[in-house]
Amino acid sequence: MRLAIQLAEGASGQTGINPVVGCVLVKDGRIVGMGAHLKRGTAHAEIHALQMAGPEAEGSTAYVTLEPCSHFGKTPPCSDRLIKEKVKRVVVACSDPNPLVAGSGFERLRSHGLDVDVGVLQAEASQLNEAFTHFIQTRRPFVTLKTASTLDGKIASRSGDSKWITGPAARAYVHTLRHRNQAIMVGIGTVLSDDPLLTTRLEVPALHPIRVIVDSGLKLPLTAQVVTDRSAETIVLTTENADAAKREALEAAGITVLLCGSGQQVDLRLAMVKLGERDIGSLLLEGGGKLNGAMLENGLIDKMLLFYAPKIIGGNGAPGNFSFGGFELMKDAIELERLTVQQFGSDVCLTGYPRYRNEVK
Amino acid sequence: MRLAIQLAEGASGQTGINPVVGCVLVKDGRIVGMGAHLKRGTAHAEIHALQMAGPEAEGSTAYVTLEPCSHFGKTPPCSDRLIKEKVKRVVVACSDPNPLVAGSGFERLRSHGLDVDVGVLQAEASQLNEAFTHFIQTRRPFVTLKTASTLDGKIASRSGDSKWITGPAARAYVHTLRHRNQAIMVGIGTVLSDDPLLTTRLEVPALHPIRVIVDSGLKLPLTAQVVTDRSAETIVLTTENADAAKREALEAAGITVLLCGSGQQVDLRLAMVKLGERDIGSLLLEGGGKLNGAMLENGLIDKMLLFYAPKIIGGNGAPGNFSFGGFELMKDAIELERLTVQQFGSDVCLTGYPRYRNEVK
Repeated sequence: MRLAIQLAEGASGQTGINPVVGCVLVKDGRIVGMGAHLKRGTAHAEIHALQMAGPEAEGSTAYVTLEPCSHFGKTPPCSDRLIKEKVKRVVVACSDPNPLVAGSGFERLRSHGLDVDVGVLQAEASQLNEAFTHFIQTRRPFVTLKTASTLDGKIASRSGDSKWITGPAARAYVHTLRHRNQAIMVGIGTVLSDDPLLTTRLEVPALHPIRVIVDSGLKLPLTAQVVTDRSAETIVLTTENADAAKREALEAAGITVLLCGSGQQVDLRLAMVKLGERDIGSLLLEGGGKLNGAMLENGLIDKMLLFYAPKIIGGNGAPGNFSFGGFELMKDAIELERLTVQQFGSDVCLTGYPRYRNEVK
Repeated sequence: MRLAIQLAEGASGQTGINPVVGCVLVKDGRIVGMGAHLKRGTAHAEIHALQMAGPEAEGSTAYVTLEPCSHFGKTPPCSDRLIKEKVKRVVVACSDPNPLVAGSGFERLRSHGLDVDVGVLQAEASQLNEAFTHFIQTRRPFVTLKTASTLDGKIASRSGDSKWITGPAARAYVHTLRHRNQAIMVGIGTVLSDDPLLTTRLEVPALHPIRVIVDSGLKLPLTAQVVTDRSAETIVLTTENADAAKREALEAAGITVLLCGSGQQVDLRLAMVKLGERDIGSLLLEGGGKLNGAMLENGLIDKMLLFYAPKIIGGNGAPGNFSFGGFELMKDAIELERLTVQQFGSDVCLTGYPRYRNEVK
């Protein structure tokens, strides 16, 4: 199962809103097949593994990271194929996160006489598909926030300088995060000050995320790199009050403009629903303090990776990693659960999952 | 040597400006003596170990964490005693950090025919005495900063609430730090808002640090706990402009008032010199953002323990962990060297040593 998880992990970021799945077939103490789901619309992990095994599949045990499907989607159901190839036993890490179909794959296998065990390395396997699980249950993208701060919580100096806070290892990992997310989101302030490309730049070929710009006043210049560069799609989130002529100009330049509410600011909750409707299941938020704060206040951040560089920049007006009204009392602060700590070179990354109280969510 | 370091570590905080030292005597594969220096003015580690060994000391090997002394201080020189007891070989972790006497202990031992090896577990042993080393070389206290912040770098909410940021494990460790430092320093703002005791409260008996209050305007009320509570000495740092009557009233209440400079604010560099003159070799800084920032700007913080609780409080006016003018460019930020990461319950502690550039120090 450990190997099946590694197979699945290898495909992280390249299956779109589909889950990543790995499968290993074992017979008489030898591995006879291995497979992973590599791309939405193509063969599932089990099918690749069964094809590798050929006639050896008969009587084997299949280790699969996710419950085999029992319905016709873009491909025929994997349960039927496991049955047809006379696999004897199926060991599964996680059941299907979609409550409407969970367990139906197991039922089908058991009704045909296969032994089924569920729950092996469940925690590890389910974390691989945390975005998929969130999307299938909410139809909103799973939002992962990434920030790079100094030890005094600043994301730039008092003059706005932010190059660089973290070192090369942390910055390279951020590009891996871009590869693993279907979309990346920043505020218009970041675009106006840095004119970023927001593409994935790694030493190996990788996928670029869809670029999402929060731009309530539709200030995005037609000359910005996110407009002129065609290596990835760009979506602009704005409001119904946005200037129609500017909107048409952006659309003529190939940009998708989504109107999110009639207020002064983009309705971020509505925006997430609209991105979900476009099958965006995972989104990396690389905002400035204001956008991060607004997303947090709306309870829309699902996971955080907070990088801290071992330095102190000072400056009372220097921008912080989260800018919002905040809470009166320390006991009301938003807490991160399941905190883990990693070191990247001389930088530290704290990863956790915010827990929202009712008044926020 | 590992055991000798553990013996020394056990005495951390109770030897005043003296170093902690551990000694283990080994003969024919058996430990025949163990000792540690426990209190300034009393026997050194080697003497305790030799006394435990008695006649077994002859022909033994002594493992000592610090170069044995060769001069008469408050006690006779240890080198002479090692020679007299016919110890055969001496293995030492660190030479004496005082450049004026370093090596003289080794010379004396070698000139009497003892084998001497130096440098075993040097890094570990020298860290134990980092405060002593700093003091012996600068005559200023070794300043350890401790802060407890949220992930957005705040030490309180917008309303000033700070109870509690970190959890019980981190807060208990802070009391161990108080035991290990000769003095604790806060600003008058902390005293006025929290009226703290600033004593060491652990489940085991411990030493209280000398309380040092930075109070440029001499606003310290005579009713404050740091004035009325007599479990530890209190020193107030102020300026030559301070109100003479208030100063006399504080002195009559048993408080030591030190005048540091003629400016509007306490001259912190001069203050450290004055504390050093009083044989304060280690100081724990538990300041608010302004005092932390001022100490940092003056290059006076030698080590930092930055605790982060996994929570976000927000509030644009909420106080940060360092408040000072700061730097124009990120590349000029003050960096922490030798960063280490520890977890205390759900909190994270980053420990490092600030590196000051010339323009700061």
